[in-house]
Amino acid sequence: LLSSVQPAAARSLMIAGLACFAARGYHATTTRDISTGSGMSPAALYVHYASKEELLYHVSRLAHASALNLVEEAAEGEPDPIGRVRAYMRGFTVWHAQHHTLARVAQYELSALVPEHRDEVAKMRRKTEAVLRSAIQDGVRSGVFSVSDVRSMTRAILSLGIDVARWFRDDADLTPTALGDLYAVLALRMLGVTDCG
Amino acid sequence: LLSSVQPAAARSLMIAGLACFAARGYHATTTRDISTGSGMSPAALYVHYASKEELLYHVSRLAHASALNLVEEAAEGEPDPIGRVRAYMRGFTVWHAQHHTLARVAQYELSALVPEHRDEVAKMRRKTEAVLRSAIQDGVRSGVFSVSDVRSMTRAILSLGIDVARWFRDDADLTPTALGDLYAVLALRMLGVTDCG
Repeated sequence: LLSSVQPAAARSLMIAGLACFAARGYHATTTRDISTGSGMSPAALYVHYASKEELLYHVSRLAHASALNLVEEAAEGEPDPIGRVRAYMRGFTVWHAQHHTLARVAQYELSALVPEHRDEVAKMRRKTEAVLRSAIQDGVRSGVFSVSDVRSMTRAILSLGIDVARWFRDDADLTPTALGDLYAVLALRMLGVTDCG
Repeated sequence: LLSSVQPAAARSLMIAGLACFAARGYHATTTRDISTGSGMSPAALYVHYASKEELLYHVSRLAHASALNLVEEAAEGEPDPIGRVRAYMRGFTVWHAQHHTLARVAQYELSALVPEHRDEVAKMRRKTEAVLRSAIQDGVRSGVFSVSDVRSMTRAILSLGIDVARWFRDDADLTPTALGDLYAVLALRMLGVTDCG
């Protein structure tokens, strides 16, 4: 995912920053850690990013834009609510498993962003949530889902996917795809669909 | 939960440490931050804890022991698997909502513990997990649950509860109890139980 970042030096800094944030947290990481971690001089970060926060913002935006894009595409191809929720949850789960380090930093370091950056990321998060909520609402209307509180249900299903970033590791007992298939079934069961094969 | 910690100075340090870890992360917090945050002299922490890690270990042990104790008691009173999963998930969810700051630190800073402390906490986590897994296995055997992979199902249900610590705030739109009731229903739906009222 980070391979699209240009120029190469900005990409190296992002990769090093992500590794530092994931290992020790945003606040315990210095700009010097990031610059030297990418094999550059201590102040190299400032050539490409105005600050450490600016780098986190780029990491977070990249992650959230990628997840949003993926769930929009997954949902678009599916005409009925069951198919949309299944495709959404499969994609959302696979994304969090495949990009677990990036996802963990993007999900857990939101409070470190300055207000304007946090607002921009929050907007992307709301769009991501809206795609699922709209599929759930359609299914409630057509009678295929049984849901008492659409907002809480949407949050619960997203929550199951997001938490994958906390525990998933590359040597996990399930592949991202197998986990995505399982969680798509679980999301449909949560919605009261019993035959979701 | 922290009110049981004695003496009072050790309790103040734990409360201040928890606030620092939650706000900026374990690695960005100094022992001086914690001591002065509790209104004591810079080196006061060392009177009660051998190190910052030792304080985190006490916080983590307190949290995990409390959660384990709660789910064991919740499950004990219920003879059938459906009742056990319901009581477990209700208690587990309420615990993570009520103690969301403590839970967040205990769940997300595990990697900062030294190996022997991490092992001890991991043992408590495995016990907590085993109580749920055993209820699920019983329900699979008696035919009330429909589960293809008990391990992944146990992890998914726990995951839904643990992620509450990430997003829950005291001004959330649901009370901890209402959330616990909802998530108990969702856990049973995930297990293929359709009439869980």
